[in-house]
Amino acid sequence: MDFEQLNTPAALVDRARMERNIARMQTRMDGLGVAFRPHVKTSKCLPVVWAQLAAGARGITVSTLKEAGQFFAAGVTDILYAVGMVPSKLPQALALLRKGCAIKLIADNAQSARSLGQFANENGVKFEVWIEIDADGHRSGIKPDEPALIEVGRAIHEAGMLLGGVMTHAGSSYDCGTPEALQAMAEQERAGCVRAAERLRAAGLPCPVVSVGSTPTALSARHLEGVTEVRAGVYVFFDLVMANVGVCAPGDVALSVLTTVIGHQADKGWAIVDAGWMAMSRDRGTQKQSHDYGYGLVCDLAGQPLAGYVLSSANQEHGILSRQGAPDADIARRFPVGAQLRILPNHACATGAQFPEYHAVAADGSTETWSRFYGW
Amino acid sequence: MDFEQLNTPAALVDRARMERNIARMQTRMDGLGVAFRPHVKTSKCLPVVWAQLAAGARGITVSTLKEAGQFFAAGVTDILYAVGMVPSKLPQALALLRKGCAIKLIADNAQSARSLGQFANENGVKFEVWIEIDADGHRSGIKPDEPALIEVGRAIHEAGMLLGGVMTHAGSSYDCGTPEALQAMAEQERAGCVRAAERLRAAGLPCPVVSVGSTPTALSARHLEGVTEVRAGVYVFFDLVMANVGVCAPGDVALSVLTTVIGHQADKGWAIVDAGWMAMSRDRGTQKQSHDYGYGLVCDLAGQPLAGYVLSSANQEHGILSRQGAPDADIARRFPVGAQLRILPNHACATGAQFPEYHAVAADGSTETWSRFYGW
Repeated sequence: MDFEQLNTPAALVDRARMERNIARMQTRMDGLGVAFRPHVKTSKCLPVVWAQLAAGARGITVSTLKEAGQFFAAGVTDILYAVGMVPSKLPQALALLRKGCAIKLIADNAQSARSLGQFANENGVKFEVWIEIDADGHRSGIKPDEPALIEVGRAIHEAGMLLGGVMTHAGSSYDCGTPEALQAMAEQERAGCVRAAERLRAAGLPCPVVSVGSTPTALSARHLEGVTEVRAGVYVFFDLVMANVGVCAPGDVALSVLTTVIGHQADKGWAIVDAGWMAMSRDRGTQKQSHDYGYGLVCDLAGQPLAGYVLSSANQEHGILSRQGAPDADIARRFPVGAQLRILPNHACATGAQFPEYHAVAADGSTETWSRFYGW
Repeated sequence: MDFEQLNTPAALVDRARMERNIARMQTRMDGLGVAFRPHVKTSKCLPVVWAQLAAGARGITVSTLKEAGQFFAAGVTDILYAVGMVPSKLPQALALLRKGCAIKLIADNAQSARSLGQFANENGVKFEVWIEIDADGHRSGIKPDEPALIEVGRAIHEAGMLLGGVMTHAGSSYDCGTPEALQAMAEQERAGCVRAAERLRAAGLPCPVVSVGSTPTALSARHLEGVTEVRAGVYVFFDLVMANVGVCAPGDVALSVLTTVIGHQADKGWAIVDAGWMAMSRDRGTQKQSHDYGYGLVCDLAGQPLAGYVLSSANQEHGILSRQGAPDADIARRFPVGAQLRILPNHACATGAQFPEYHAVAADGSTETWSRFYGW
């Protein structure tokens, strides 16, 4: 690989790894008999999403209405906005709906549901709304057995909206560290969401879609009975947090940051590189996991991990690269000034977001520039 | 304040606080008899830098050559690029120099100094180069008494470059927590940099500039004998890390993130807001300080802190807002769905970088949109 022409730090996407990650997930979803709706917040990048859709994904999940607008403008119509809707964002959703976007909104409380219905009726449109379920207590949503579930379902249905289904995200799966814990969390996510759907149907309400997912649970579920679709995001690139969770190896991570050595503190065993936290992000997701990689795992230019070498510390545009355990007294010779290295990130969603573009590297070493979306 | 028209999350700059912070620093520098060269990596925003220059700053410091290019295109000519220079970036610096930019580069090793000199001579130009000094062991630079200092000075001078001076940044000051510790660190930074300048001069080398600085040391130094200029960045906005260090109060923090309440988990005392780590950044700089603010301190719409309420946790586009200590059983009534709040950041440089633009709020509540630079 020769990246001399790239300005560092730069975000690299290993296309072969990305395609392998996409194929792995889609094959698994096909085998489990569910549709797959990738969360595009990880890449925010059209060529990545085209590859996901080409592999068989049906529709996308977005984390902001700006993403929805950008992907809709590019031709994606089936879009789930997976953050609780508030009145101030309804005009943006209305504009998308009127242009022909099959946008799905979510709600987890009666107030949001009612204001949404009122706004839609005032504007003469019907929104499709899914109810957010809290399967693991980590964030938003209605617990599967809460009375509020039926109240919110009725508020949506009786306002004339299309009650499209239920969705949940077991974010707690990121805290799991064994296959057994992951399987149990996947089953908890499935069972909770299916239970919520059954309660809505028993109350005479429609609930065609049952949508679950996170990368760890999607890759760990033994069956998905009652589920109609799965969502996952970070699997497309993977990262060191996912490697610690146990659903990939560092060698599967498709996103890396290309950096240049700019100096040393040889007596400390430090090489100083031009990838600081502005490039890596401040995400320290591996800090509490089984293996703490600092701000990232160092790889050679071919993307092969150099075991034990990490970005141990980071300032805005400076990274401190060192060996874990005994300092490397030979670091200045091993990684001289001007040398280029690649750093695997803790969290691909956070690191990717620091860059206006990816440099997608094909197996033959050729690169393409892929721009990504940014902001709200 | 009425921010109904703003899409949340949004980055707000309180102009009155910013102007007060700028005046405070410039007045202090004038009193200490030194020039002031703000580090613009904090804001990466022209109107902010114009305000700094209008108050008396002389030249700017940048963290990337992209910043240098953007600010030079806007009319700023005296620019210090404060990251160690490597051969691959020399063509960018050359292009700026040839357009008339008075760009200063830095080096802390003979290899970089020599390759820089060779490149300049091959291209028939002279770069101004400053030597980076390590005053506190936290990152890059040559220790004030190391033999390498003279070697690097000679390499620059004998290649026909302009040896402009020495510079250091006592980043360790961020770890200080008392006025005495800050004063001691400021004196260590000053004395180390002045010592390096004296050694160069004693070796018959020129060293007109002696440049030191960080926000905490700039605001703590008792005198700056031998120093010609100071650099600081984050003071322009301040943040919660700086409040813990003791050089500002939370009420001085000029940058905040406007957010909207999107739901609750009332039994846990949580309000869920639409400012997650994508908006706040993953910076947890207050985690090890005297007061841990989670991902930020909650304020009302006028920007006044609501003591005890913090963003205790963050996902990509979700923040969990809670009261420190006893959970607030009344949280859903206190902060209903749709309510707007402002969140003060741990680290203004990291939070600002998440946004394509700032909404600058004047004392009368009117807002202007200020764009900011991004990427490399």
